[in-house]
Amino acid sequence: MAELNRQWLLRRRPEGVVGVEDFEYREASLPTPQDGEVLVRSLYFGYDASQRIWITEHGGYMPPVGIGEPMRTMGIGQVVASRHPSYAEGDLVTGFLSWQDYVVARVDGPMPLQILPKADYPLTWNLGVLGVGGLTAYFAVTDVLKVQPTDTVVISAATGATGSIAGDICKAMGVKRVIGLAGGPEKCRWITEKAHYDAAVDYKSPDFVARLRELCPDGVDAYFDNVGGDMLDTLFDLMAPRGRVVICGAMSSGYTTPDVPGPKKYMNICTKMLQVQGILLFFYRDRLQAGIETLARWIAEGKIHVEEQIVEGFEHAPRLLPLPFSGKDPGKLILKVADPS
Amino acid sequence: MAELNRQWLLRRRPEGVVGVEDFEYREASLPTPQDGEVLVRSLYFGYDASQRIWITEHGGYMPPVGIGEPMRTMGIGQVVASRHPSYAEGDLVTGFLSWQDYVVARVDGPMPLQILPKADYPLTWNLGVLGVGGLTAYFAVTDVLKVQPTDTVVISAATGATGSIAGDICKAMGVKRVIGLAGGPEKCRWITEKAHYDAAVDYKSPDFVARLRELCPDGVDAYFDNVGGDMLDTLFDLMAPRGRVVICGAMSSGYTTPDVPGPKKYMNICTKMLQVQGILLFFYRDRLQAGIETLARWIAEGKIHVEEQIVEGFEHAPRLLPLPFSGKDPGKLILKVADPS
Repeated sequence: MAELNRQWLLRRRPEGVVGVEDFEYREASLPTPQDGEVLVRSLYFGYDASQRIWITEHGGYMPPVGIGEPMRTMGIGQVVASRHPSYAEGDLVTGFLSWQDYVVARVDGPMPLQILPKADYPLTWNLGVLGVGGLTAYFAVTDVLKVQPTDTVVISAATGATGSIAGDICKAMGVKRVIGLAGGPEKCRWITEKAHYDAAVDYKSPDFVARLRELCPDGVDAYFDNVGGDMLDTLFDLMAPRGRVVICGAMSSGYTTPDVPGPKKYMNICTKMLQVQGILLFFYRDRLQAGIETLARWIAEGKIHVEEQIVEGFEHAPRLLPLPFSGKDPGKLILKVADPS
Repeated sequence: MAELNRQWLLRRRPEGVVGVEDFEYREASLPTPQDGEVLVRSLYFGYDASQRIWITEHGGYMPPVGIGEPMRTMGIGQVVASRHPSYAEGDLVTGFLSWQDYVVARVDGPMPLQILPKADYPLTWNLGVLGVGGLTAYFAVTDVLKVQPTDTVVISAATGATGSIAGDICKAMGVKRVIGLAGGPEKCRWITEKAHYDAAVDYKSPDFVARLRELCPDGVDAYFDNVGGDMLDTLFDLMAPRGRVVICGAMSSGYTTPDVPGPKKYMNICTKMLQVQGILLFFYRDRLQAGIETLARWIAEGKIHVEEQIVEGFEHAPRLLPLPFSGKDPGKLILKVADPS
């Protein structure tokens, strides 16, 4: 066990796109767990657009990360010392960690660290396809959108950690036509060649709306929105009567302010009697295991394509933070910090 | 039967608040019905905020009223000549009419004129509490919001033709706490003294948000939105987790442009997993009779207070059009044109 605890602390609240200079590197001594706490060694950090919200003043659905505190992240770790009866040394765990080699975690909150069961799939899947992204996609598609085989479904940010899984879930459920939206021909190729989508449309292309309309001659029955903004307005106009929309994110806003621009075309909700609902995994915390089992089965059956971008080295932690908003490669972005012992 | 057909024609597409000068008075000769048509004499015209949308260039969910055409209205009339086997001379009918003494109506469209059954209640109720407003309120409350006895429900434009009925429907269904929003102390008094709401909050008062928050200590479970704009944003912030919102209108926009300002706080949909759905009566056209029967029963039981503002005289038709947006008295605004024969 190293004696050094490397940390990346939030130096200031960033304006606009987050940068490395918004964080401060520090080396601290190892923390000591008290009664009811565990000491966890960091193995992997997952990257998610919502981390940008956590460092705004309002924090969104969680308290904001404080200035001078280690940056919050979803992660995988290993218990190296436990003073809580439910956790043993050596346990592999997942949940909220932070950007440091060692984290002391209280495990009595509403979302405690989960002990990972022994499994024959890679540990990192717990951060992506079987973690927040995959499970959010799963409940959004099956429980919110309640997709039907006859549906035409459109999914934005279709190469993202959530969107890429959402499309495959729709196809696994037998949906007739699933269309992914992404920026650039390379990502669009990935959508139909690696993921199981039926078609892809490049939103950066000048004939984007015309092309999408052509692919959805009877309108869009279900839209999985990860981006908000103009795209949401475009889809509101394309929705079929009584269509369903799930609001999963508004990445186009960059999450730099508490309020994001509202959809100008939202009166389509009224005139087409659309059903628009949000998804937050917190509300499904009692049903996560069922989701994980179904997703794992679909992966084994080849119905879900797993894509991960794994970068190695604690020093890269801040540099990767803006990537979910911009140019990252398809799938889940993960930082590897250490191997389990 | 008069030989003269008085008409109010749309002269131009109004900008902003509609005025009398946007219409032109004309006296025409009586039209003659062809095969499959009926000639209807106008008795009552109902006023509705959505008429403002029909005279914009886009028309909303219906084709726009053309320049030089008689203004479209919901109305009650009497068949004076029929060349359609389903309609007989003397039949009282309701549906889309227009601002003229006599209308030739085709009755084969998706929303044909409905023959009114003999009933022991006033004819005008078919335009208000048993018409579009009352039925929209009924299906929005029972089928979209699916209110529960334990709910805290908030309704905006609570003295309007729809909102006033919506509150009483909630109470008839046993909802614990129903709060109406309106402008000014007089309207707020009406909400609790005439309608059956539990409380009223004056949105023009400086402590409006604090007062509303105080009345909803556990958040708002269901919000009936008739106004959009800042009010919708305020309510998004006050909604309880997994709350429900029905979008029935956006009257605060004045409906002068196709796009109305979108809610800036709409990401609450995601973080609180709200369910936001529209209501358009068109989608309930096979279930209207059941709604009318239930509403009529509740009125007979004293559970729904019926309020109508009836103005007499065809000459007033354009003058009343902006009133649903501004200072009109509570309830349904109706113009009386003639008595049935």
